[in-house]
Amino acid sequence: MGSYRILDEVNSPADLKVLSNDELTILAREIREEIIETTAVTGGHVASSLGAVEIILAVHSLIDAPKDKFIFDVGHQSYAHKLITGRRDQFSRLRSYQGISGFPKPSESEFDVHPSGHASDSLSVATGLAKARVLQGGDEKIVALIGDAALAGGMAFEALNYIGQEQLPLVIILNDNEMSISRNVGALVRHLGNLRMSSQYRDAREALQERLENSGALARGFLNFGKSVKESMKQFVVPQSMIFEQLGILCTAPFDGHDIAGLRELLSTVLTMDSPVLIHAVTKKGAGFEPAEKDPERFHGIGAFNPKTGESITPERKALTYTEVFGDALVKEAQHDPDIIAITAAMKSGTGLCRFAQEFPDRFIDVGISEEHALGMASGLAIAGKKPVVAIYSTFMQRAIDQLAINNALPNLNVVFALDRAGLVGPDGPTHHGVFDMVYTRMVPHLRVLAPSDEAELVNALHTALALGGPFAIRYPKAEGTGAAIPDEPEVLPVGVSRTLREGSDASILAFGREVSVALEAASNLAEQGKEIRVVDMRWVKPLDRDAIRQAASTGLVVTLEDGATTGGAGEGVLKLMADEGLSCPTLVMGIPDQFVLQGDVDLLNKEMGLDAESIAASIAERLSS
Amino acid sequence: MGSYRILDEVNSPADLKVLSNDELTILAREIREEIIETTAVTGGHVASSLGAVEIILAVHSLIDAPKDKFIFDVGHQSYAHKLITGRRDQFSRLRSYQGISGFPKPSESEFDVHPSGHASDSLSVATGLAKARVLQGGDEKIVALIGDAALAGGMAFEALNYIGQEQLPLVIILNDNEMSISRNVGALVRHLGNLRMSSQYRDAREALQERLENSGALARGFLNFGKSVKESMKQFVVPQSMIFEQLGILCTAPFDGHDIAGLRELLSTVLTMDSPVLIHAVTKKGAGFEPAEKDPERFHGIGAFNPKTGESITPERKALTYTEVFGDALVKEAQHDPDIIAITAAMKSGTGLCRFAQEFPDRFIDVGISEEHALGMASGLAIAGKKPVVAIYSTFMQRAIDQLAINNALPNLNVVFALDRAGLVGPDGPTHHGVFDMVYTRMVPHLRVLAPSDEAELVNALHTALALGGPFAIRYPKAEGTGAAIPDEPEVLPVGVSRTLREGSDASILAFGREVSVALEAASNLAEQGKEIRVVDMRWVKPLDRDAIRQAASTGLVVTLEDGATTGGAGEGVLKLMADEGLSCPTLVMGIPDQFVLQGDVDLLNKEMGLDAESIAASIAERLSS
Repeated sequence: MGSYRILDEVNSPADLKVLSNDELTILAREIREEIIETTAVTGGHVASSLGAVEIILAVHSLIDAPKDKFIFDVGHQSYAHKLITGRRDQFSRLRSYQGISGFPKPSESEFDVHPSGHASDSLSVATGLAKARVLQGGDEKIVALIGDAALAGGMAFEALNYIGQEQLPLVIILNDNEMSISRNVGALVRHLGNLRMSSQYRDAREALQERLENSGALARGFLNFGKSVKESMKQFVVPQSMIFEQLGILCTAPFDGHDIAGLRELLSTVLTMDSPVLIHAVTKKGAGFEPAEKDPERFHGIGAFNPKTGESITPERKALTYTEVFGDALVKEAQHDPDIIAITAAMKSGTGLCRFAQEFPDRFIDVGISEEHALGMASGLAIAGKKPVVAIYSTFMQRAIDQLAINNALPNLNVVFALDRAGLVGPDGPTHHGVFDMVYTRMVPHLRVLAPSDEAELVNALHTALALGGPFAIRYPKAEGTGAAIPDEPEVLPVGVSRTLREGSDASILAFGREVSVALEAASNLAEQGKEIRVVDMRWVKPLDRDAIRQAASTGLVVTLEDGATTGGAGEGVLKLMADEGLSCPTLVMGIPDQFVLQGDVDLLNKEMGLDAESIAASIAERLSS
Repeated sequence: MGSYRILDEVNSPADLKVLSNDELTILAREIREEIIETTAVTGGHVASSLGAVEIILAVHSLIDAPKDKFIFDVGHQSYAHKLITGRRDQFSRLRSYQGISGFPKPSESEFDVHPSGHASDSLSVATGLAKARVLQGGDEKIVALIGDAALAGGMAFEALNYIGQEQLPLVIILNDNEMSISRNVGALVRHLGNLRMSSQYRDAREALQERLENSGALARGFLNFGKSVKESMKQFVVPQSMIFEQLGILCTAPFDGHDIAGLRELLSTVLTMDSPVLIHAVTKKGAGFEPAEKDPERFHGIGAFNPKTGESITPERKALTYTEVFGDALVKEAQHDPDIIAITAAMKSGTGLCRFAQEFPDRFIDVGISEEHALGMASGLAIAGKKPVVAIYSTFMQRAIDQLAINNALPNLNVVFALDRAGLVGPDGPTHHGVFDMVYTRMVPHLRVLAPSDEAELVNALHTALALGGPFAIRYPKAEGTGAAIPDEPEVLPVGVSRTLREGSDASILAFGREVSVALEAASNLAEQGKEIRVVDMRWVKPLDRDAIRQAASTGLVVTLEDGATTGGAGEGVLKLMADEGLSCPTLVMGIPDQFVLQGDVDLLNKEMGLDAESIAASIAERLSS
C-alpha cells in the first residue's frame, strides 16, 4: 500500500476512541480494502464481513473490550473485528493452515468471546454473560451482533424468549441485510408487526426516551413515543421488528447500519440501559465492493477472486464435486418419482439443490436456518407418503440429531439424509468439519448409513436409499470426485455388502468413503515394498459387511480408515463386529483422533495427523514388521 | 363399573359423530374416571391428560381420522385419544411391559400419527403433512395440539416461522394450561402483544370473519374484527396470542378449552380454512380431579396414587434416588462455591433442583423447554467465570448435542452436564430411555465423562467435575441408589482411574455406572460355578482406564457391560483401546443392542435383552467353556 493508513495505527479497539466520526469513516474504507485484498487470495465470507464494518467500528469505539463483551453470531461478519484487535499482521493468513481463523476464536484472541461457527447461538451466550453480570453486580457492556438469517434458528428464539422474561441487560444488534444465505428467513422477518406494551415495558421505553432526549441525541433510531399507548399507535410507522417488543425487548426502528456517526450516537445511549434493547440495523451485504453488492450470494462464502472485477478465480477442475453429482442425481431421481421432495436449511446452493429448485419449485423446500424443523417437516412429509431428501451439511446436522432419531428413525420413515461436507472441510475449521456424523448416525437404530467412495457410488447410494426406503444417511465430502463415470442407470447396492478393490494377503484396509482412494494409494506404496494389501471399499457404515471383516481378519492385520472421529466411529464398529464374531486379529483403527481439528488445507491436516497415504503406508509397514 | 357407559360404545372416533354435545360432555366425564382409575395404578401423565379431554373429543368428533391427522405434541395429553381409538381394553396396561404406550405410537395404532415423546416437534410434523396435502391437492384436515410449555422450544418457533411464511393449511390448538412443567415459558407467553396485519393477512381474516358469520357461528373465539386496522385497534381486547398473528397465523382469543359445544362450533368453521389458524384454548391441568387441579405439578408425571384422595402411594424406599443425591450434593457444593449456577430446562423437580432453587434462587435458572439455549447460556456463564451445572435428562440432551460440542467443549469451558435418567427409564419407553448419551458424549473432544456406580460415587463425581474444571458430563440413572453411604467430605477422583471391586482370574467385567452392581451379582453367580471373575467399576467413560483394560485382557476374557447403546458406546471404546495397545483378547461387549427399546419395567426389559445378572453370568460361562 505504501501510503499512510489509519488502520496501521489501530492495534487494539482502544485506539478507536481517539478517532472522530470522519476518521472512523475513512478507517472503514481502509478495512474494506484490506478485506477485499486478502479474501481475493484466501477466499472467505466477503459479503457479510463487508456489510458489518461500520457496526463493528461503532461498537468497538464505545465499549471497552475485552472487559466488555462483543459477541458475534456465526462470525462470518467478524473480519473488521479481527483487523482492529491486533491481528492485522496475520490477516493475510486468514483461514489457512496455522493462520488465523475466519471465525471468532477465543484461543486466538481475548477479544473473541466464543467460537462462533454455527448460527443462532450468540444470544444464548450473551444471555449467560448478562446473567453473570447481574449476579456479580458488574457493569460490563454486552453486545451481540446477529444477522437476520440466524434469527430463524430456534435457539435464537429460545434465547429471545428468555431475555424478554428476565430483562437481562444486553444490546442486540440485528444486522438485517435482507438476505439470508438462501433468501429464506420465514415469517418472522417477512411479516410486519405492531406493538402494545405492558406498563412495565412502557416505563422502560419512556425512561429510554427521556435519556435520549436529555443526552441531546437525535433519537432517530427510536420510535418517537408519546406518553400513552393510544398516542403511540397513531405515530406508529415502522413495524418491522415489533415481534421483539412483544417479547419484552425494546427495539429501534430500522436504522442505517452504515452510518457510523448515527450508530455511535444511538449506541452510546443504548449501552447505558439495564434492560434488553435491540438495534435494528439495515445494511447492505458486500457494501463498498460493487461485485459483492450485486451478487451477495456468490460472495457469501467465496474462493479466490479478482479484487478489481470480482470475478471468481476458479481453480482448474478435474471432476464434478460430490455436491454437484448429488444435485444432478437427485434431479434425475425426481424426474422419475414425483414423491421426492428436497429440503434444505438455508443452503440451497451449498448442497447442490439449485437445479432441483428450478426444475421442481413445488417440491423444493428451504426452511431457512432451521435444521430441527427441517427434520420434523421431513417426518411429516414421509408420514404422508412423500420421500423427503434432506440435504444438510454434516456439521449442521448436529443440530438435529434428536429429530433424526426420534422423529425419523424410530417410526422407520422413508427419509434420506444427504450429509454434505462430511469429513474435513478445510479453511472453515473445527466448527465446520463434518467428523462426527458416522458416530451420531451409527448410534441411531433403524438408520442405514452409506459412505460413497466416488461419484458413481454416490449416485448409486442415493438410488439405493430411495429404492429401499426407510431412514437412510448418505455422507460425502466437500471435494471433487475421483472422476469416476456416472452410471447411466443407477443400481441398487446390496445392503451391507462391500466391494473389494484390490486383493492382498499381508493385511486388509477397510476404508470408508473418500478414504478408499487414500487406501489404494497406500496399498500401492506398500506394494513397492513387497507388501500385498487388500483394499475394501466398505460402502456401508451401517450395517457393516460381516463377511468382508471376517476375510480381512484372515489376512492377519485389519486396518480401518475413515475421515471421521474414531471415537465411536466406523472403525470401532468393525472392532465390535470382530469381537462379536470371536475374531481375534491385530487392528489398526485410523481416522480423526479425539480432538477438534484446526483449519487449513485438508491434505496438510491429514499429513499432520498421519492420515496421508504415505503415513498410512508407514504405519501399516511398522505394524507388519513388529 | 357395571353400569352403562357411553365410553363402552366408542370403538373408534367415528362413533363420536352421532353423539350430541351433552353426550360428549358425559363421555368426557367417563373418560376422566377411566384415566384416574387406570393411572392410579399405572402412574402416568395425569394432569395434562385430564386437561385435554374436551379438546380431544371435539377434534375427533369433527375430523375423520386416520385420513385426517391429529398430531400431539409430547403426547402427555393423549390418554383420551387412546381411549376412543380402539384401545380402551388395553388401557389398564398403559405404560407397562408389552402394554400400550403412554405416548402416541404409530406402530400401535393408525390413529397415532407420530411418536410424540420430545416436546415442540408437533408443528414441524404437521407442517410436513400440510405441505404434502398441498402438493397432492388433498383436503385432509391437519390438527396439531401443543401445550404452552412446548412453545418455548426453538423447534416449535422454527415451525411457526415457516408456517406463517408458507400459509400452510393446518389448525394449531394451543392448550394453554398456564403451567409448564416447572412454570417457566418465557416472554412468549408472559408478555402481551398486539396485532396489525398485512393486507394479505387482513384479507384472510376477513374471509374467516365472513365465514363465521355465514355459518351462524357465534365466533366468540375470534376477535370481532372491523374493516380497518384502525377500527380493530379500538376493539382490541385480548392480546395474549398476538405474536402468532405477527407471524401470519390467524389466532383466536383465549377460549374455554373445556367447553365442548363451543370448541366444536369454533373448530367446525376453522377446519374449513385453507390457511393456518391457531385456536388458543385455555384449560385447567388436572381438570375434573380435584387433587390434580390443586397440585398439577405433582400430577404431571406421577406414580401410583389413591384415586379418591390423590395421595401418592409411595413404594417402599430403601435409598435415596440418584436424582435426590445429586440435588443434595449440588446444594452442598454451592454452599462452598458462590460461582456454581444450576440450570434446568423445565425439569426443576425431575432433576432434583428444588432445594437448590430454594436456597439459591438467584443462582437457579430454569429456561423452560429450551435445551439448546440452556447450553448456550451455560457457555456464556462459564466464559464470565461462573460454574454452570446443567441438569438435563439424558434423552433431552439429544436436543443440544451440537451446543455441547461447539459452545462448551470446543472452548474447553467449565461446565458440568448432569445427565439424569441415563440408561433405561422404564414406562416412558423408547423416546425417553437415555441410551445414547455415552455415544454422543464420547464423541466430543475435551469432554470428560463419568458414570458413577452408586450414591457416593455420584457425589464424588460431581465434586471432581467442579474441582477439576473443563467440560464434564456425569450420567446417572432414574433409580434408587444402592444404599451406599454418602461421604461427608467428597473426594476428587483421579482422572481415568477405575476401581476394582472384586478380584478374579478367569475373566474380567468392565462395568459402567449402574451395571457395576449387576456385574457383581453376575460374578457371584459365576463364583458358585467355580469361576472367579474380576469386576471393575470403570467410573470413567472417558478417558478410559488403560491399565485396568490391560489387566483385564490378561485374565483371558474381557466383558464390557453398560446400560447404553453398544453401537458407539463405552464397550467399543474399550475395544479401540485394546486395539491401540495391541492387546488381543476375546471380548464380550454387553449393553443395549442396536434397537429402540420398548417400555416397561427395567428388570423385565433387561431380562429380555439378556442383560440381567443371571443371563450375563450365563453368557460369560458359555464364552469361558467355548
